Amino acid sequence: MTGDDLTRRLAFLLEADKLKTILRRTPLADNSRLENSAEHSWHLALAAMTLEPYAPAGADVTRTIRLVIVHDIVEVDAGDTYAYGTEGHDTKEARERQAAERLFGLLPAREAAELGALWEEFEAQATPSSRYANALDRLQPLLLNFESGGGSWAVHGVRRSQVMERMMPIRDWMPDAWPYVLDIIDRAYAAGLIAAD
Amino acid sequence: MTGDDLTRRLAFLLEADKLKTILRRTPLADNSRLENSAEHSWHLALAAMTLEPYAPAGADVTRTIRLVIVHDIVEVDAGDTYAYGTEGHDTKEARERQAAERLFGLLPAREAAELGALWEEFEAQATPSSRYANALDRLQPLLLNFESGGGSWAVHGVRRSQVMERMMPIRDWMPDAWPYVLDIIDRAYAAGLIAAD
Repeated sequence: MTGDDLTRRLAFLLEADKLKTILRRTPLADNSRLENSAEHSWHLALAAMTLEPYAPAGADVTRTIRLVIVHDIVEVDAGDTYAYGTEGHDTKEARERQAAERLFGLLPAREAAELGALWEEFEAQATPSSRYANALDRLQPLLLNFESGGGSWAVHGVRRSQVMERMMPIRDWMPDAWPYVLDIIDRAYAAGLIAAD
Repeated sequence: MTGDDLTRRLAFLLEADKLKTILRRTPLADNSRLENSAEHSWHLALAAMTLEPYAPAGADVTRTIRLVIVHDIVEVDAGDTYAYGTEGHDTKEARERQAAERLFGLLPAREAAELGALWEEFEAQATPSSRYANALDRLQPLLLNFESGGGSWAVHGVRRSQVMERMMPIRDWMPDAWPYVLDIIDRAYAAGLIAAD
């Protein structure tokens, strides 16, 4: 391995450092500030490990951990597109694809292909491991919004049917967790944290 | 699985959320603020994936990823003990052990044991996977301190021999990366970011 090889890998890691400055709409559980996409990705990796018995059949938790570590890195260039908003959704795919090419392209070919494949797998939602990752990516902000006292639901006037729609991957891929999710939504609605339709 | 089982796992995840509020002494690469331990853990997981060819023989990168995701969670109770400081080092082990018992004890027995074992493995430094994790945990703040223009070295007047001592796990366990580390230390010293002995 040459010095140039290591330099490329470290340049990628320094570029990825910017994910710590990309803010999501969801606050921390203590409502002290908005969450960033790097710490969010860490939280999903921890969730993948601790919620393993609720993973869909055939999911490889190790693969899911790698998927969630990588899934948001494109936001360094493309920004975070708000789940309940309409802005940016028509251009999201093109922006993120361009970001993936530039960012993973900083790495040597083998690792560029490996990380690119992880991002593609998460986006395609065709494997149990990526479906588990996606369901966790819906469950974690639900917890934070509820625990923080409304979070992005309250700030943006999100409606009950929108939250239900957003949580469908949990119903489909983590069905044992679904009654818990319905209970949270009911309680959030009763408390006025989620708007009526 | 009972509702109580899921409730315990989610209570753990909400408690772990506090790791996002534990600040380290190292700034982000752009020097905009200090890094927190959750996003730091994510960065190490990404580093484990992208620096795999530099890992010590026998390291299981998948295991290393799990180790770094879990290694700092005890700081939720015990706080971050500054690497170059003297304060808190005599009580660090006892504080962190108590924290591990309380925090991992929030989980059902199997996952409590699994995460406890990951934390113990990282601390014991007896396996190639944990040595790789530890070397990454030294390399990443070196990069951030250098890139940000001095970071915790400059703020706390850290001396060259202290940095060298701190980087020894890289010399020992990622020897192919060692010349790069020496070069960074030389440049940081020449630029006045690290103090003379």
